[in-house]
Amino acid sequence: MADQYAQTGEDSRRTEVPALRWEEPPEGPVLVLLDQTRLPAEEVELVCTDAPALVEAIRSLAVRGAPLLGIAGAYGVALAAARGFDVDDAAEALAGARPTAVNLAVGVRRAQSAHRAAFAKGGGAEQAAAAALAAARALHEEDAEASARMAERGLALLDELLPGGGYRILTHCNTGALVSGGEGTAFAVALAAHRTGQLRRLWVDETRPLLQGARLTAYEAARNGMAYTLLTDNAAGSLFAAGEVDAVLIGADRIAADGSVANKVGSYPLAVLARYHHVPFIVVAPLTTVDPDTPDGASIEVEQRPGHEVTEVTAPQVPVVGAEAGGGVPVAPLGTQAYNPAFDVTPPELVTAIVTEEGVVSPVTAEALAELYARPRRVVAG
Amino acid sequence: MADQYAQTGEDSRRTEVPALRWEEPPEGPVLVLLDQTRLPAEEVELVCTDAPALVEAIRSLAVRGAPLLGIAGAYGVALAAARGFDVDDAAEALAGARPTAVNLAVGVRRAQSAHRAAFAKGGGAEQAAAAALAAARALHEEDAEASARMAERGLALLDELLPGGGYRILTHCNTGALVSGGEGTAFAVALAAHRTGQLRRLWVDETRPLLQGARLTAYEAARNGMAYTLLTDNAAGSLFAAGEVDAVLIGADRIAADGSVANKVGSYPLAVLARYHHVPFIVVAPLTTVDPDTPDGASIEVEQRPGHEVTEVTAPQVPVVGAEAGGGVPVAPLGTQAYNPAFDVTPPELVTAIVTEEGVVSPVTAEALAELYARPRRVVAG
Repeated sequence: MADQYAQTGEDSRRTEVPALRWEEPPEGPVLVLLDQTRLPAEEVELVCTDAPALVEAIRSLAVRGAPLLGIAGAYGVALAAARGFDVDDAAEALAGARPTAVNLAVGVRRAQSAHRAAFAKGGGAEQAAAAALAAARALHEEDAEASARMAERGLALLDELLPGGGYRILTHCNTGALVSGGEGTAFAVALAAHRTGQLRRLWVDETRPLLQGARLTAYEAARNGMAYTLLTDNAAGSLFAAGEVDAVLIGADRIAADGSVANKVGSYPLAVLARYHHVPFIVVAPLTTVDPDTPDGASIEVEQRPGHEVTEVTAPQVPVVGAEAGGGVPVAPLGTQAYNPAFDVTPPELVTAIVTEEGVVSPVTAEALAELYARPRRVVAG
Repeated sequence: MADQYAQTGEDSRRTEVPALRWEEPPEGPVLVLLDQTRLPAEEVELVCTDAPALVEAIRSLAVRGAPLLGIAGAYGVALAAARGFDVDDAAEALAGARPTAVNLAVGVRRAQSAHRAAFAKGGGAEQAAAAALAAARALHEEDAEASARMAERGLALLDELLPGGGYRILTHCNTGALVSGGEGTAFAVALAAHRTGQLRRLWVDETRPLLQGARLTAYEAARNGMAYTLLTDNAAGSLFAAGEVDAVLIGADRIAADGSVANKVGSYPLAVLARYHHVPFIVVAPLTTVDPDTPDGASIEVEQRPGHEVTEVTAPQVPVVGAEAGGGVPVAPLGTQAYNPAFDVTPPELVTAIVTEEGVVSPVTAEALAELYARPRRVVAG
């Protein structure tokens, strides 16, 4: 039985709510997550004491966002190790909790490798657990650093593409501090523009079906005092037609070797609209999102989620895992079938640039991406 | 004070629920509407005893859909006349209740003209009221006929564009019997294809923010036993990319003289996707939707609706008119601004064909549209 429980933060008005933290209470370590399904209505922390609890939190989207999933996965392995559970079993379950985000498996494998290496070097269980935790912490720290460098590079790219500032940026889903060890990916670029006085407007797609834009991006934009406006995903077309969008900035869940980008469903239609309107379409993601083992877009497995996310409305959005229905109020006739892919794939020819912490790829080609991926990277010593 | 009240249908399982009907109870005539904001959860009829009640029903979307708004507007004038209210005041209020749908004003003016003409011919108040009602009834009947002819012409066009049948049709918003005196516009074409065994799948966009696709089109598709699948508007891009859409069929709220089409927000992004994927984008609308006095897309006034339709979730969707908020559960942080246009405008170069009851215009040009509009039409004697 998965063991997770909720605790309400003592001060719900604090301005820094970490999306995830490791704690060492007397009764053993735990991984504490900000339950993102409850936002923005309430800030509730979810305490995971074992890997199955974390798997459940990942599936229910209590913790989500490609970079953060990688960090969570690594900590999950560390948690299993620290609590004496089978680390390989835990790693397997964690890596498979969501199929599209490559970062999750990458983070899991990193902590698992550290754990194995410590054993191989003759360490005991305690040393191996410490090595897994150190690997998770290193990934966490690297991600925060990567976030800062993506923001810097993304801002420089905007300045190059759109000299003069006053950017009206359209974004989709949530890509801020809630998905990262730092300030995020695409959102971090918009935030950097805000801080330098160059952001005129952040257009926030609500992002159906789970409304991560309305619930999470609007929440982060409001906290940061940014000028933002929420819209239904449908209304983005009208903004493009009116010339109100200078650039689209989104994150990514997996980038194939050819530069195809899997991201939250609704990204691809934005890429087509951006192309039709000659607006730059920019993907911001850490290099861990690039998967050289996935050759192209067609090879990316797209997670299909339950139909009740579409046929029922719940607020706040709390999809119930494993249940036949979501516990929400039906908005479609009973028995209605739904098509509910969590992601879509944008081909490289529609992507103006991919911004990573190590550099910008533009135009997006397999060669340029491979060259960037092969460069030596900054790694935090574990 | 507007006077409308609800009554629950005695048999909620009946398969024919008229969207609108005129009744003559002993205490005076009333206009009975199927309250579309309560669907699919419940079939409740809304009884309007005067024009202000109908204006409220139009604003709250209890009655909606371009052709039906025209019919409702005409009956509204007849109601004011029959009950001895000021007909010109009522006509003014009704015609302005929603700005984008041209049919509403056209229907109102037709009944108003009939009323005036009866007076001019020396008739009394009773004769004038009867003339207004006859005009409304004629419009109602013509619309039902137009619907049947659009379905026939639309099906012939599909057969021409996509020989062999097995159509996978994507539609947006609701365009069936709930918007019409007959079986609707775009939906009527899909229904005709279903009846001839040529419909493989109806893809139903949920149509945020008010979910007319999920609530109403799915309801009509289910009642008619059609093979349909619901999707978030976001997921349409994935269907196009996978080659799962053979044609897009939508309705229209106003067609400008140059062939620009105002329709439910989200139509324009579908037109851009359809063009990118070489899929026919077909608009089905009665000739009353063509407005020769609106020269082009830029001249179409697009209704902006309250932000709470986006920032709050209600289920079933019951927008509360005039209130500061919608009485729903907030899904975005309090104070979030929303951009909520009800419609968007698709330029003629993205429209493969406009199907009307009098003929099909393809390619869509101002000349072809003007030629069609000028043809003599079948009119039901009032």
